[in-house]
Amino acid sequence: MAETRRLFLINSHILGSFAFHKKCTALEEYRERGRPLNQRILRDKFLEPLYDDYNHVWELMKEKEDLFNHMHYADLSREGLKERSQRQIMHIYPKCNLNYKSVRENPLHKVGILVGMLCNDITLGTRVIVHACLYIETVQNLGTEKHLDLVKRAYALKDYGCCGMTELGHGSNVAKVETTATYDHSSREFIINSPTPTAAKWWIGAAGKTANMAAIFCQLIVDGTNHGVHAFAVPIRDFETHKPFNGVTLGDCGHKSGLQGIDNGFIFFKNYRVSYDALLDKFSQISPDGKFKSHIKNKEKRFGLMLTGLITGRCAVLFCAEIHQRNALTIAIRYGAVRKQFGGEVERPILDYPVHRYRLMPHLAKDFAANMSMKIIARLYNERIKLIDRDPESPDVTEFHALVSVFKALHGWYNQKAIQECRECCAGHGYSSYAGFAKLRADNDVHMTWEGENWVVIQQTSRWILRAVQSTFKGGAIKSPYLQFINLSSDKPRFSNKEQLKHAEWLISLFEYRCNYYITESLAKLQDNGRIYQDMTVTWNHTQVHYLIDLAKSFGELIQLKEFNNFVNDLTRKCPATGQVIANVMYLFASHVLDQETSSFKTTFDPEQAKWIAETVDELCDEVGENAVKIIDAIAIPDHVIASALGHSDGQVYQRYTQAVENAPGCYDPPSWLNLIHETRKAVNL
Amino acid sequence: MAETRRLFLINSHILGSFAFHKKCTALEEYRERGRPLNQRILRDKFLEPLYDDYNHVWELMKEKEDLFNHMHYADLSREGLKERSQRQIMHIYPKCNLNYKSVRENPLHKVGILVGMLCNDITLGTRVIVHACLYIETVQNLGTEKHLDLVKRAYALKDYGCCGMTELGHGSNVAKVETTATYDHSSREFIINSPTPTAAKWWIGAAGKTANMAAIFCQLIVDGTNHGVHAFAVPIRDFETHKPFNGVTLGDCGHKSGLQGIDNGFIFFKNYRVSYDALLDKFSQISPDGKFKSHIKNKEKRFGLMLTGLITGRCAVLFCAEIHQRNALTIAIRYGAVRKQFGGEVERPILDYPVHRYRLMPHLAKDFAANMSMKIIARLYNERIKLIDRDPESPDVTEFHALVSVFKALHGWYNQKAIQECRECCAGHGYSSYAGFAKLRADNDVHMTWEGENWVVIQQTSRWILRAVQSTFKGGAIKSPYLQFINLSSDKPRFSNKEQLKHAEWLISLFEYRCNYYITESLAKLQDNGRIYQDMTVTWNHTQVHYLIDLAKSFGELIQLKEFNNFVNDLTRKCPATGQVIANVMYLFASHVLDQETSSFKTTFDPEQAKWIAETVDELCDEVGENAVKIIDAIAIPDHVIASALGHSDGQVYQRYTQAVENAPGCYDPPSWLNLIHETRKAVNL
Repeated sequence: MAETRRLFLINSHILGSFAFHKKCTALEEYRERGRPLNQRILRDKFLEPLYDDYNHVWELMKEKEDLFNHMHYADLSREGLKERSQRQIMHIYPKCNLNYKSVRENPLHKVGILVGMLCNDITLGTRVIVHACLYIETVQNLGTEKHLDLVKRAYALKDYGCCGMTELGHGSNVAKVETTATYDHSSREFIINSPTPTAAKWWIGAAGKTANMAAIFCQLIVDGTNHGVHAFAVPIRDFETHKPFNGVTLGDCGHKSGLQGIDNGFIFFKNYRVSYDALLDKFSQISPDGKFKSHIKNKEKRFGLMLTGLITGRCAVLFCAEIHQRNALTIAIRYGAVRKQFGGEVERPILDYPVHRYRLMPHLAKDFAANMSMKIIARLYNERIKLIDRDPESPDVTEFHALVSVFKALHGWYNQKAIQECRECCAGHGYSSYAGFAKLRADNDVHMTWEGENWVVIQQTSRWILRAVQSTFKGGAIKSPYLQFINLSSDKPRFSNKEQLKHAEWLISLFEYRCNYYITESLAKLQDNGRIYQDMTVTWNHTQVHYLIDLAKSFGELIQLKEFNNFVNDLTRKCPATGQVIANVMYLFASHVLDQETSSFKTTFDPEQAKWIAETVDELCDEVGENAVKIIDAIAIPDHVIASALGHSDGQVYQRYTQAVENAPGCYDPPSWLNLIHETRKAVNL
Repeated sequence: MAETRRLFLINSHILGSFAFHKKCTALEEYRERGRPLNQRILRDKFLEPLYDDYNHVWELMKEKEDLFNHMHYADLSREGLKERSQRQIMHIYPKCNLNYKSVRENPLHKVGILVGMLCNDITLGTRVIVHACLYIETVQNLGTEKHLDLVKRAYALKDYGCCGMTELGHGSNVAKVETTATYDHSSREFIINSPTPTAAKWWIGAAGKTANMAAIFCQLIVDGTNHGVHAFAVPIRDFETHKPFNGVTLGDCGHKSGLQGIDNGFIFFKNYRVSYDALLDKFSQISPDGKFKSHIKNKEKRFGLMLTGLITGRCAVLFCAEIHQRNALTIAIRYGAVRKQFGGEVERPILDYPVHRYRLMPHLAKDFAANMSMKIIARLYNERIKLIDRDPESPDVTEFHALVSVFKALHGWYNQKAIQECRECCAGHGYSSYAGFAKLRADNDVHMTWEGENWVVIQQTSRWILRAVQSTFKGGAIKSPYLQFINLSSDKPRFSNKEQLKHAEWLISLFEYRCNYYITESLAKLQDNGRIYQDMTVTWNHTQVHYLIDLAKSFGELIQLKEFNNFVNDLTRKCPATGQVIANVMYLFASHVLDQETSSFKTTFDPEQAKWIAETVDELCDEVGENAVKIIDAIAIPDHVIASALGHSDGQVYQRYTQAVENAPGCYDPPSWLNLIHETRKAVNL
């Protein structure tokens, strides 16, 4: 094959074609444009507080650049991709100081390390997260002193764990999982069973090939009574031989949209006996005389507490979504500055065109907004994670869940739309795998549905908000600082001129009003629907569309805008010029949200006001577009972590792209199926 | 490997787990629900006029079901996928009666056959389209009598052709391609050259591995003068040995987001000499004394005529986008009826939930709308294609281009959003390749940017509309029947009650008003911007966002709605009950368009009216959702063509899905990289 290729190369004089690209200066030229911007200040503010952990991981990646450069990942087999990510884990994990003590002292350190991995490849990060968050935190949060050794073993990778919660038949409604753990008092053991095919634990990361331990969520049956879902830490593979134990069936879930390197697997139990200590017994125990007991009497509340092991994973998802959105924007913005098309004798960069700026800049603004919510979550994380251990029923924990839920969903949606638009903005070349979008989109798509399906998970936020509002009806006060804006009798801020769309305080008051508007509308609709449907759940379900979903989103956007404003104020204090550039990004975020509004709230504006909003969006797209290359340079993650031919900071788009194409297997080879071409001709001309 | 697997199977008692699913009756039960519907009548109306051609291809696929079942396509290598699609071509093409005579008599027959192939796999269809449309129609439309033999050879597959239009550096702006054909009068030959790396012909389907002929678009240089882009039919590979000729470099463009089976390639020319007859000389010739001549004096007009070979491809794209949207909906709707989650002791199908119906039903309605525009294009196709040959400058040809352009873009956008939502609506299992969305999304994504980037191509439609309006300012009359609604002084139809949203005539008049509104707004904005920017092109570019793009879209939606109404009326005549069910789909289409409106047009409604619209959307989603399984059954393409585990008409979702998983390579195998697991442990515990 190598020989054939060499011959083809010579035969076709290829060395005379792509080998000698002239240096392309287009990206440099775009960097000279726009307003002054202190990239150092912006970068530091934007990447805090996790920059050091990220950077530690990125530097490790630099040590073995080939192992983390995914330019040609798509030509590897599924098995090859799993092997590759195992090599990545082997290279990185041992050097990241992840252990019981370090994580206990600073839980956020673990998040930083994991997200650092996700920046490069969601496969890599996820393979470690299922073990280091889902498995370990489930054991730690739901277990007791006696399970601590499992936690320590796991951090040392003596065990590799997976977390068996969802089943083939149950994803969102985990309370209904079918797997049973039946207590056998005679041996003081549990017998785990998957009673039907849909009871198979499914999509379980690490179960397919890697894990020897599993946290398994089962209906706990004692003396014929179902006490609801409980978790068990159980061995599934022999530590030495790695073979599944008798009574445990393990398989790989097969090909997916992306993330082939993760060994998502299924687990099937048949009369599998585990010792009493397998029960993670923080909230429930079985007494020596065989009686079930729990200090949490309410079965539903107990179930809620079982899910606390998911919170870090959900945080990682919302961090990851923001960063990959940024990666997509990095590629599309740099490419847009280099790619020239139309514009007369001398063609212009496509990033100069108003349509192109309109397509990309609002996503850049949303990326900033997502970064703001990421900062909020990062700031709260350490304290709230410790609180989950100490007082899992605290209102502060509930608030944290509500915030994580809305941002998990919002970041996922932002990310999906941004990656798609960025790919389209790179037109034909955006469809090449060497651009990077194929992988970005396929991998990130999973954010829509994992760790809580977005349309389901966001309901936790609207429920939390409405509960707070309802408490005021009973004379209570709203405690959460994030809900202090609630005032159902507030008036819409006067909107008398276009310039108001560039005043942060006015925008915030408008966003507050907007959220209050949705609360009021939702309450009224809930009442109406309650009269129609009687049943509370049915009423709730019928009030999602156009009401509760919009309410949760508008809340998330309000919180993002407020944090964004603090961010801009801080920047401005350090460097007014930089603050001004980023203030425009913030105004774009806000005005674009208003512009894209489709609900009845939009019609509270008149056509003139609507046009002010639209014009402001267009003007700000233009303004931000002019500065986009400098902005993205400041916040982009390093080239070797992104690995895109179109998005490299040196701007040598065509050279890197053609190199990638020529280096791909079989570029110049004749088809191995040449005989079929001849046979096809014969088939037609019989 | 087989041995290992058998052992694992026995060891893990797997035969006792997935092998015995109970028959699932959920889909059957959903089929019983809703209103009466005559599926035969709906199916016939929906699939005309191309059903016979489609069906012919689908039946051929049934003969070799394994060859067309892409359940496990993703485990094939890139080379393997190319080989596979070559086998598919070999099986189908010879049996489809595609030849010069049959296509000349009924051009639409070719479209039907090609779209029949696309239904199953865009790779397959596209590999034939690049040859049978792009190459053949370019040679036929731009060549003369002497080129007829090339056309006949090509239909007989004696030649396999590709169409070398776009280059590495030029996609949308094809007028600027860099490849040159320099006339050498001494030998009466042309010398073709790719003067820079970006001049490489790029993304050329069939150039990578298959084609021996190419239609190449070059700047024609005669006596040092550039006469603009002209096409040449040139041999690129030796017919027998299949080796590229000296002076021609051919390579494969490598890995893409999807469509790995297509050998998109690049072509590089170095002093490649071709005979005079290679010039496709319908519009331009070089006289025996070496002078360039053309009866089309305007260089730009001449360039426009060079692109006529693209029109069938563009039509195929808009047909394909509709069908694959329908495939995605088929999968998601059937899965939604089978999948149960929440709802109390007995869980309910997720398709019962208002949110779920809201997420899916508008896309079903848009699929119907897209089917309507497909019908319009199919109806016009034969006559207009013949006209392109006879009188390429006819206003009817321009009209056809304008219609194809807006629908190409609209169908692409509908398709992208629908597939994404359908995938998300299948939640976790939607991420599995066996669901079918991974392939659907990755393959269909190309519609956004090929055959005319959507945001660029749709500008042809707004330009055509505004030219028609401008002609009236000079006292002319609008000739196109599709533009008779234009009346810039029309009043907005009175909107006094919610029920009007279920009156077709009122909706049409509102959609007409809406398009007139955008025309008026666009004209005013063009005037404003003209004052600001002076330059016509710059003004045009600055008036796209919020104006011209919306104008073109609103025109497309109006035409779809009108055709939809005719469709419903026809149905109603045949079966009033069926007509009523589909009328609701139409009302949903219209009210959803209004609900999602974000422009200043939305603010011409007041909040009460906006709520009528929103409520109507919600009610109709519910109404259509209840009938969705029956509707989709009527219009779905056959199971063996879709090949989805989740979307099969028998509703045995879990059984088919687990079968696919178990049949995937390596499901029960231990990892081939087991040693790395042990090594990783050691690395941590040094």
